[in-house]
Amino acid sequence: MPKLNIKSGRIELVHGAGGRATQQLIQELFLPYFDNEELSQQQDAATLNLPAGRVVMTNDAHVVNPLFFPGGDIGCLSIHGTINDLAMQGAIPNALAVSFVLEEGLALKDLQRVVKSMSEATNDAGASIVTGDTKVVEHGNADGMYITVTGIGVADPRYELSGKRAQAGDVVLLSGTLGDHGIAVLSQREGLSFKTDLQSDTQSLNDLVQVLLKAAPDLCCLRDPTRGGVATTLNEWASQSKTGIVINENALPIKQTVLGACELLGLDPLYIANEGKLLAICPPNQAEACLNAMHAHPKGQEAAIIGELQTDPHNFVVLNTHFGGQRII
Amino acid sequence: MPKLNIKSGRIELVHGAGGRATQQLIQELFLPYFDNEELSQQQDAATLNLPAGRVVMTNDAHVVNPLFFPGGDIGCLSIHGTINDLAMQGAIPNALAVSFVLEEGLALKDLQRVVKSMSEATNDAGASIVTGDTKVVEHGNADGMYITVTGIGVADPRYELSGKRAQAGDVVLLSGTLGDHGIAVLSQREGLSFKTDLQSDTQSLNDLVQVLLKAAPDLCCLRDPTRGGVATTLNEWASQSKTGIVINENALPIKQTVLGACELLGLDPLYIANEGKLLAICPPNQAEACLNAMHAHPKGQEAAIIGELQTDPHNFVVLNTHFGGQRII
Repeated sequence: MPKLNIKSGRIELVHGAGGRATQQLIQELFLPYFDNEELSQQQDAATLNLPAGRVVMTNDAHVVNPLFFPGGDIGCLSIHGTINDLAMQGAIPNALAVSFVLEEGLALKDLQRVVKSMSEATNDAGASIVTGDTKVVEHGNADGMYITVTGIGVADPRYELSGKRAQAGDVVLLSGTLGDHGIAVLSQREGLSFKTDLQSDTQSLNDLVQVLLKAAPDLCCLRDPTRGGVATTLNEWASQSKTGIVINENALPIKQTVLGACELLGLDPLYIANEGKLLAICPPNQAEACLNAMHAHPKGQEAAIIGELQTDPHNFVVLNTHFGGQRII
Repeated sequence: MPKLNIKSGRIELVHGAGGRATQQLIQELFLPYFDNEELSQQQDAATLNLPAGRVVMTNDAHVVNPLFFPGGDIGCLSIHGTINDLAMQGAIPNALAVSFVLEEGLALKDLQRVVKSMSEATNDAGASIVTGDTKVVEHGNADGMYITVTGIGVADPRYELSGKRAQAGDVVLLSGTLGDHGIAVLSQREGLSFKTDLQSDTQSLNDLVQVLLKAAPDLCCLRDPTRGGVATTLNEWASQSKTGIVINENALPIKQTVLGACELLGLDPLYIANEGKLLAICPPNQAEACLNAMHAHPKGQEAAIIGELQTDPHNFVVLNTHFGGQRII
């Protein structure tokens, strides 16, 4: 069997059939990047070596068009997404399981580029890809590829992060500018008439979270506002904490290019996806410490206090606008 | 917001956008079937309550056409597949993470049927679905739906099942008839000219495995021969154990309808997928006990000893045919 031609070869249905071609794809394209003791056993299941603590599990399916965008690609994005869901529970990421649905005809060099990007993102977060699966569907039945990443992490049982712990008077912080990811991806879609040099903010936040938990040990909750954006996370928290949340538009960190693109496209930046930012609620007496810890970290330089919780039987999220008005978001 | 019309409604792109429509899909279609303490927390990650032991993790992506086939559907199949990968490591299934990629236009009643089937399969295996994710792709970009299931289980550390432990003289057992799943699914594809009353064998094998580990505690290894069939598993074991394996065609349990369909379609039943059978290798002195334990279990009634391992520097898998010949598989 000749070696895979990664430079000009393409995915064929046989690569998903479980036989020799699947083995070859694993050996020549996946293992060089994902290699570790567990995966090299090549069992259908991996044994984990977990430290003591509260074990946390999460998963995310990723479907992105285009696969490559300014600042990232579906590969690192899928790893960051799962790492961040673990981190928002205070967990230190440990083991990842990866599954690919590949479209027949996908260029092997594109797959390699994605796999390399996943490998780097996994190593950066101190995690390992311990098991995986690959299926191939007929041409036309997937946007190049879909990736699902499931993660296991271990949290210090002292931290119990939940929107239910938040109460009126608590403070809402955002770790950086909002909307960068969603607008960077949109700017690459065919048929859209704007160009920007905007980059996606896709990144892992597990290191930032560990710093925040030390600086503000009574943090109530953390969340990365991905799909649905900041507004959706705040509404979920308002409902969980049975409070209202008031946000100040003047305080929102946002890039001019994102604002401009949102105006052009008629979008509300509060609903645009972020992939490398976090929202936090913390008691007022630790808000300053939390903000300072964000500012001292490379991933939180543009952090801001954006609002606070208030008593409200309707659990509304209200925006104080630039113009002195209010609107429910 | 009116309730979902499950009878005649369809999946729309907004169901995957992370906002209110996604929440409604979760509340009205997923939670009624998947409800448990973990999932009802509706965090992005779930905290697991694992018993002591060796923690095992596995995942599988499922792409099946058609979604519904005689004897099962993509829902129970996706659960059985992951449960079985855990079981083959001797693990007792605990927590599952489920991710859906849904195609715009999918009938909600089909999704409900799949979700119900997943729920039943999960309960049967004594596991829980603790976290999940749903994405929606444009019409034409998925075969109805793709499902990835990742599972965590806990194994008694005394059992270390691996093909590396097998050696010449050990015995190969198969828990029942081969090829039922692959042929049952093929029979439903458009354009194929045969009809059968064959059912897929899709089922969880975790209960059978626990019985076998008691009856034959020195079992070397277990595997469910899914994609790639019995032949692929045997070749992987030959390579891992650095032996040859000889199989007797006369001993293979196989249904007449499967044999007939394979002849008609020019397929080798040894390469057809199974979704509810297991292969085992065990030392000769425990083979009889292992076979008896299979026969005494409802999922192993047609089990058979099908061959044995032998010294072979080429690590070939050889079939002794009905006609007294031999062929390498």
